[in-house]
Amino acid sequence: MNKRSREIFRLFVLRGAEPKGTLAEIIQMAAQRKVHAAPVDRRQLDAIDPNHQGLALEVSGYHYAAIQDIFSAAEAKNEPLFVLLLDLIQNPQNLGTLIRTAAAAGMHGVVMPQARAAGITPAVVHSSVGSTEHIAIVQMNLAQAIQVLHERGVWVIGMDGGEDAAAPDPARLGGNLALVVGSEGEGMRRLTRNACDEIAALPMKGGIESLNAAVAGSIMIYLSYLTHRQ
Amino acid sequence: MNKRSREIFRLFVLRGAEPKGTLAEIIQMAAQRKVHAAPVDRRQLDAIDPNHQGLALEVSGYHYAAIQDIFSAAEAKNEPLFVLLLDLIQNPQNLGTLIRTAAAAGMHGVVMPQARAAGITPAVVHSSVGSTEHIAIVQMNLAQAIQVLHERGVWVIGMDGGEDAAAPDPARLGGNLALVVGSEGEGMRRLTRNACDEIAALPMKGGIESLNAAVAGSIMIYLSYLTHRQ
Repeated sequence: MNKRSREIFRLFVLRGAEPKGTLAEIIQMAAQRKVHAAPVDRRQLDAIDPNHQGLALEVSGYHYAAIQDIFSAAEAKNEPLFVLLLDLIQNPQNLGTLIRTAAAAGMHGVVMPQARAAGITPAVVHSSVGSTEHIAIVQMNLAQAIQVLHERGVWVIGMDGGEDAAAPDPARLGGNLALVVGSEGEGMRRLTRNACDEIAALPMKGGIESLNAAVAGSIMIYLSYLTHRQ
Repeated sequence: MNKRSREIFRLFVLRGAEPKGTLAEIIQMAAQRKVHAAPVDRRQLDAIDPNHQGLALEVSGYHYAAIQDIFSAAEAKNEPLFVLLLDLIQNPQNLGTLIRTAAAAGMHGVVMPQARAAGITPAVVHSSVGSTEHIAIVQMNLAQAIQVLHERGVWVIGMDGGEDAAAPDPARLGGNLALVVGSEGEGMRRLTRNACDEIAALPMKGGIESLNAAVAGSIMIYLSYLTHRQ
């Protein structure tokens, strides 16, 4: 777990659970961080979440990062900027999947607007398989974020269909790059779309009109990663 | 809708719905196929599926294709074979997403085993956004399918982690190709895995150990499509 994203308060362990295997490891890791393991009854764990596996960790709410943290992450690794912008993704499954792919591809951060979009809720943490704790996530107006990125010489590609969309040119995916993914139904908002340097769509055959938004975004992220950033 | 996959029996339309816009188009398309539009009460539509939008189509069960249909599809287009094999994908969302990506990338068919795996249920059709009706789907023992594919000179790449896994070499993704995707938790079964010519894993950074199975498979499908098959 990333230092920035949470404070850890207490570890609750099912009373009477035998401290071996993974459980022993978890208790040991907690002790190293001076987190106390408190025995609790099953009833108390059930009240926290019926899908518990004999454990619960009490943590602070999610700490969002600042866009400067994204720039610092890229600078610390001496890498060209590689950022994901999410415009009003409301489906927690898609949001979690995109954050998971972004973290796996070594992106330096994710920017999403505060209003109307899903935040980093427990459902998003779950569908990201914990990746939310491994990457800087910033809440910020997207048009403003694109302006700040432009000032740093970042090329911004919006993923969308439409007449002006062309297949992505792999040669353009190197260097300072931001990818923008819109929501499954509505796509990007007009202001976000207009701020992009390029609108790209993945080619499609067979009478299929669109891909799942998280899949299309993940393909573009990996295309950039595999062609320029390994 | 593919001729092979369903027979269409009747179209039910909410009684009193005004036949304009999309509804008018649907009724006209049905008439062209000599499908009768029958007015029904809301209660009857609710009984079919509470999420109806004033319409229901009565169709036959899903007709699976034979592996020969996949070969015929490639031959008809004069394209090298491009096939997806799914080993025990049980999550309908992942199954539908992979079928949608396969159809969009112009793959000639999908092979999945009959036992234990999810079939083409309404949930899968829904999560595929109807793509199940646009691509040949075969139920067949996967080890046998791989044997038949090998006889046709197909290179079979299994997507999996593990010590013998390497990043995919884009140069190997041309020609007759089959990609095998295993289930999110368990991966491929041993017999399937051993029958593959190559085990490939996408590289990952940032302490992330895996991608969503449907996303990893979709990335490999599009990597093959974009590098060799546009």
